[in-house]
Amino acid sequence: MEKRKLRGGMVGGGIGSFFGPVHRMAAELDGQAEYVCGALSADPRKSKKSGAALYLDPARVYKDYQEMAVKEAALPADERIDFVTIVTPNFTHFDAASTFLEAGFHVVCDKPMTCNLAEAKKLKSIVAKTGKVFALTHTYTGYPMVKQARYFIQQGLLGEINKVVVEYPQGWLANFLDEGVTTTTMWRTDPKKAGVSLCMGDIGIHAENLGRYVTGLKIEKLCADLSHYIPGNQLDDDGNILVNYNGGAKGIIYASQISTGEENGLNIRVYGTKQSLYWNQENPGYLTLKNKDGITTRYSKGNRTLCQEAQNATRLPPGHPEGIIEALANIYLGAFKAIQAGKGNQFIAGYDYPTVDDGVTGMAFVETVLASAVSERKWVNMLH
Amino acid sequence: MEKRKLRGGMVGGGIGSFFGPVHRMAAELDGQAEYVCGALSADPRKSKKSGAALYLDPARVYKDYQEMAVKEAALPADERIDFVTIVTPNFTHFDAASTFLEAGFHVVCDKPMTCNLAEAKKLKSIVAKTGKVFALTHTYTGYPMVKQARYFIQQGLLGEINKVVVEYPQGWLANFLDEGVTTTTMWRTDPKKAGVSLCMGDIGIHAENLGRYVTGLKIEKLCADLSHYIPGNQLDDDGNILVNYNGGAKGIIYASQISTGEENGLNIRVYGTKQSLYWNQENPGYLTLKNKDGITTRYSKGNRTLCQEAQNATRLPPGHPEGIIEALANIYLGAFKAIQAGKGNQFIAGYDYPTVDDGVTGMAFVETVLASAVSERKWVNMLH
Amino acid sequence: MEKRKLRGGMVGGGIGSFFGPVHRMAAELDGQAEYVCGALSADPRKSKKSGAALYLDPARVYKDYQEMAVKEAALPADERIDFVTIVTPNFTHFDAASTFLEAGFHVVCDKPMTCNLAEAKKLKSIVAKTGKVFALTHTYTGYPMVKQARYFIQQGLLGEINKVVVEYPQGWLANFLDEGVTTTTMWRTDPKKAGVSLCMGDIGIHAENLGRYVTGLKIEKLCADLSHYIPGNQLDDDGNILVNYNGGAKGIIYASQISTGEENGLNIRVYGTKQSLYWNQENPGYLTLKNKDGITTRYSKGNRTLCQEAQNATRLPPGHPEGIIEALANIYLGAFKAIQAGKGNQFIAGYDYPTVDDGVTGMAFVETVLASAVSERKWVNMLH
Amino acid sequence: MEKRKLRGGMVGGGIGSFFGPVHRMAAELDGQAEYVCGALSADPRKSKKSGAALYLDPARVYKDYQEMAVKEAALPADERIDFVTIVTPNFTHFDAASTFLEAGFHVVCDKPMTCNLAEAKKLKSIVAKTGKVFALTHTYTGYPMVKQARYFIQQGLLGEINKVVVEYPQGWLANFLDEGVTTTTMWRTDPKKAGVSLCMGDIGIHAENLGRYVTGLKIEKLCADLSHYIPGNQLDDDGNILVNYNGGAKGIIYASQISTGEENGLNIRVYGTKQSLYWNQENPGYLTLKNKDGITTRYSKGNRTLCQEAQNATRLPPGHPEGIIEALANIYLGAFKAIQAGKGNQFIAGYDYPTVDDGVTGMAFVETVLASAVSERKWVNMLH
Repeated sequence: MEKRKLRGGMVGGGIGSFFGPVHRMAAELDGQAEYVCGALSADPRKSKKSGAALYLDPARVYKDYQEMAVKEAALPADERIDFVTIVTPNFTHFDAASTFLEAGFHVVCDKPMTCNLAEAKKLKSIVAKTGKVFALTHTYTGYPMVKQARYFIQQGLLGEINKVVVEYPQGWLANFLDEGVTTTTMWRTDPKKAGVSLCMGDIGIHAENLGRYVTGLKIEKLCADLSHYIPGNQLDDDGNILVNYNGGAKGIIYASQISTGEENGLNIRVYGTKQSLYWNQENPGYLTLKNKDGITTRYSKGNRTLCQEAQNATRLPPGHPEGIIEALANIYLGAFKAIQAGKGNQFIAGYDYPTVDDGVTGMAFVETVLASAVSERKWVNMLH
Repeated sequence: MEKRKLRGGMVGGGIGSFFGPVHRMAAELDGQAEYVCGALSADPRKSKKSGAALYLDPARVYKDYQEMAVKEAALPADERIDFVTIVTPNFTHFDAASTFLEAGFHVVCDKPMTCNLAEAKKLKSIVAKTGKVFALTHTYTGYPMVKQARYFIQQGLLGEINKVVVEYPQGWLANFLDEGVTTTTMWRTDPKKAGVSLCMGDIGIHAENLGRYVTGLKIEKLCADLSHYIPGNQLDDDGNILVNYNGGAKGIIYASQISTGEENGLNIRVYGTKQSLYWNQENPGYLTLKNKDGITTRYSKGNRTLCQEAQNATRLPPGHPEGIIEALANIYLGAFKAIQAGKGNQFIAGYDYPTVDDGVTGMAFVETVLASAVSERKWVNMLH
Repeated sequence: MEKRKLRGGMVGGGIGSFFGPVHRMAAELDGQAEYVCGALSADPRKSKKSGAALYLDPARVYKDYQEMAVKEAALPADERIDFVTIVTPNFTHFDAASTFLEAGFHVVCDKPMTCNLAEAKKLKSIVAKTGKVFALTHTYTGYPMVKQARYFIQQGLLGEINKVVVEYPQGWLANFLDEGVTTTTMWRTDPKKAGVSLCMGDIGIHAENLGRYVTGLKIEKLCADLSHYIPGNQLDDDGNILVNYNGGAKGIIYASQISTGEENGLNIRVYGTKQSLYWNQENPGYLTLKNKDGITTRYSKGNRTLCQEAQNATRLPPGHPEGIIEALANIYLGAFKAIQAGKGNQFIAGYDYPTVDDGVTGMAFVETVLASAVSERKWVNMLH
Repeated sequence: MEKRKLRGGMVGGGIGSFFGPVHRMAAELDGQAEYVCGALSADPRKSKKSGAALYLDPARVYKDYQEMAVKEAALPADERIDFVTIVTPNFTHFDAASTFLEAGFHVVCDKPMTCNLAEAKKLKSIVAKTGKVFALTHTYTGYPMVKQARYFIQQGLLGEINKVVVEYPQGWLANFLDEGVTTTTMWRTDPKKAGVSLCMGDIGIHAENLGRYVTGLKIEKLCADLSHYIPGNQLDDDGNILVNYNGGAKGIIYASQISTGEENGLNIRVYGTKQSLYWNQENPGYLTLKNKDGITTRYSKGNRTLCQEAQNATRLPPGHPEGIIEALANIYLGAFKAIQAGKGNQFIAGYDYPTVDDGVTGMAFVETVLASAVSERKWVNMLH
């Protein structure tokens, strides 16, 4: 297609939304796209009000995403949107994504992709059938130093990988340890709205995804221990997992939302036969390598010696901090590049963004963890 | 004025520019403004090409800023721009800013504001006369934890301030320590284009501004030592300054561009009679206080206990890093708020952005430093 | 007994020993003891030479510990030693400790206490029978900020504990990942000399001990995954363990000696319902607490607000680093206090040093880990 | 002389002393010396009591240092002490040191060496005349990574040095900012007992010494600003200094005892044409280098790739923290080596400890700072 600003629509993300504005800032950051329509809330009045706050054309603020899909599809090609961003509660992801894909639109969808593995596989077949671009916002793989970590491993700087530790501690749910929650006050604790898992579905999959993106290793089997500490919470709010990877590496993945005082502490350590590496999301512009002598080398985002992928994902020189909005913008740039190239998910070589396949693996991971921790209480093989 | 997206124009900032894109991302980040025109380069062909890359209407990509001021002023009110961003080499700041102010436009200008103190004072009188908003992009005061630092001091948490240390080490010029520079290869070393100073004008004024913003203290006198280590550089590339503030506090300000290996290490320490504080631009989301027992307390950006100004300057919860683009966006939001309120520089109460007064003080600081280090070689009183 | 310098003897720790000199420096640091005799090596000539280097009376440098026990016991009361320090390979710990206890001497013994749980229990009964002081050098619990961590938890500052993560990564064995080891070149990989485990017995028990010392929690069951990455190594060199504690807390313990680039990274995080804490052995003078708002408070060793136990374990004001020699010296001071009081292991209240009970629990932990990881491959209850 | 444990005596350092016990622990740490006598307090009864607590022979606990010098000199050669350690208030250093040197003893003396430059020069001539070893405990140069820093610079890894920043912030005097001090409550504020300076004499000289030890650069001229914030304090409690070195390097030295919340934050940054380095006393086991690309490399104490001097100054492998007692012990080891070799101060090559020359330079520095800050209020040349 001709090079122009892409037109986007937003599903969810109205006033009061936490991640809706972040998607808008990220998608528009590099001047390659702008949102022109939306179904911004399940409540049509709130949707209208949110549209006005965004200076959207009132005629393109829809009452729901079904209407939006139909009406946008009916617009002339040079007016209608190219893609939608879906930032609604989990249980609507599958239907909303399917609806837009089948109406001919590319889709950028928040994670977890679906409520369970069965839905995820179904969505994968819809993506394949429609040939549209489907991007899943595993935001953390958009950071330049995560790309550099992957590059170092691909280049063999770490040698053979023996051990991988990925932690994702958060503490925000600790605020509910005393008073507890209800499914009304927090949809994330309601299996009908959140899906089969809270903590694993919300952030455990980020840990799994980060580990896989950086190392290229696939989980062969795992043994998990899930907890729910919050009174009234029917789902997991903490989980610790022993992991065996194909090829012999081993590791630990843990995710927690009751780790009092932790903010958003996703981090990864990879130990190879030659060197190890460390990256921490809360100080994302740095990547640290350690050699066998314990000599520690720290690389900064923006450094001219970094790999091309890391440099492309950077907007400013070293010492000028870039954050999570920029990381998400990098995910969008990858998807936009694929959209501009007119290429869907099946032709992803060279387009660096998380796809529907990542979503399927993520949901397989969650269901395997549940099988190990709840039904089997032992080591289980990774589901597919 | 009616609440709507503001329309901006850009002077400088074309293809290859370092800080032009950052201004665009920052100004448009929160969906409150969009750039619709520009004079993007001193080279009209480069300007055109840059405009196309930004998807600007070709009719509004001008050959120079003079033309831009005239033609935009001639457009209907609901089409013409509200403000310009000036990101050209220093020596054009004064003329470009004056031109747009006098043509009726608000101005956001990169620092240093002018080439010397005399120009700065002249610009101040033009701002006063036109009543337009003039914002100077001392970006670092846009960080939420800088606002929190100021708040803590205003609230008296530190007690009376005794000592202030502001450092701004950079190392990028160290790459020229061997080979040297010429005024052709680097305009910043050319007094005709950079003004009276390189290092002090480029980053020393950030250090001065940050110290003043955070503490509210004014420099009474100083003793400076300037160096130029880079062969061929006619201006300063490093400077160390002893400072006495009004009221008895003392301190150190240093700025350097030959500090090998340093990236953009602006940081501030303030020592009061009760507590001290520390903030570092390279990890900007945190602010640290130490009490008399050495107990260290770290606050995070996004924390719900922070002051309103810090919370307003934050887009995401703690642990989700925000960087310099977001800091600059906060400066723009302050200026936009003043523009929307129809109020110029003379009515700045409550509008938290650096003004023409900061520019005058900054240039006075630079000239005082030069007087102390070069002509007098001793302690001198701060110029006004 | 009368207050005087205690007289010590050393078993092992001759020339070339890594930890022998550390024990000497630690035991003598505070001027409360001095070594006057030793059986410093299994090789009598090396023992003699080592004794000379230590300026020991040649008549009291013995050919083996059996001779030492007999001859020292035969000396007049005001000449013979009060205690021995045992720093030999693991497989001699049991016999050497038993010999000296039964000859009427107090014993300070390096960990692991014995080669297996059965021996550990037997030693416990010997300690009980003889009534002598037996101290096991779990050095890390000697650090002042570890004592402060325990104090904060005992005082309820963390609330109820939900999660405990203890990591002990080392990388020194990674140097053998390529070439491998033999039992001749490294006794630690020889089950006959090291006992049932390498990594778990050497450092896993430190992690278990630290977690228990700080939190007071006891392991109810665990699920472990052990690896041996080093060619030729018949024992574990890495292990990851899921842990359930009595009372509902959960956690992770991991220990590794193949974590390339890691030095001696023992650290602990404890998450309670009110706050969490963090301590790291490589920067041992600090303890960090985080509250529900993510506000992080760091306390320094030597701070006057700390608990008495932490202050007693500190020799210098804040900012004056103390290290592992001082930590071990604190273990010795605890044992010396019990010796001076004429009280053995059965009367430990108020004497803060690791006892034979810690040794029994440590060996039970190691054998439980082996049962889970090797024979059962599933969750198992903690052995007793 | 024959290799044996050296015998030491202590002047000052009785019960309640802060640094006396540290000297004892350090001097005896490596089993190369033991204290056998002392004049431990200006109060003879306190001296006796202190001697008993140290298990000293009561006959060798003297009523004052004059008696000690006479009586020890009268003992047979195989009984009398080899050296004394002087840890009394500043004003007695000169007389005590002279007394023992002239009585034929080696001397280890706490800093500042004397109360002023004139005394320092006189002491130097006494040292020269007697040919005895005189060591001045500039403890911080005993750290292994300080030795490595010096080595890297000597080897040219940093290139030519352009800039040196040495900071020594402490905050303990901030506790007196409200209430003030009297010369009775704190001898350090009494010019008769402390000498010409408080902060500069106490810690400013450490900063000067560290900078000179690491870089080899000598100060040519300086411009200083001294303050006294503490009510009742007649001396300086804070000072900021611009420094010009021989050969063109420039820098900043600052020392402060009113920097609220700071503990013992001595640190140094050296910027060369090729690389820069950073070392911080509060985390002393690490040394960081940065290259022109901002790539940061951290070396650990105990690393097998370090220079011989650094390895000799280390007792334990990387990751096993060593602190200030061990650093001071390294100073003692250097002095002991010279004593064993029977060589005094004039033959110092190869004996790595601070000498009387360091003391003379330190006092010259203090007097130059006072001249610049107080009498001249301008740049002054370094006194000699």
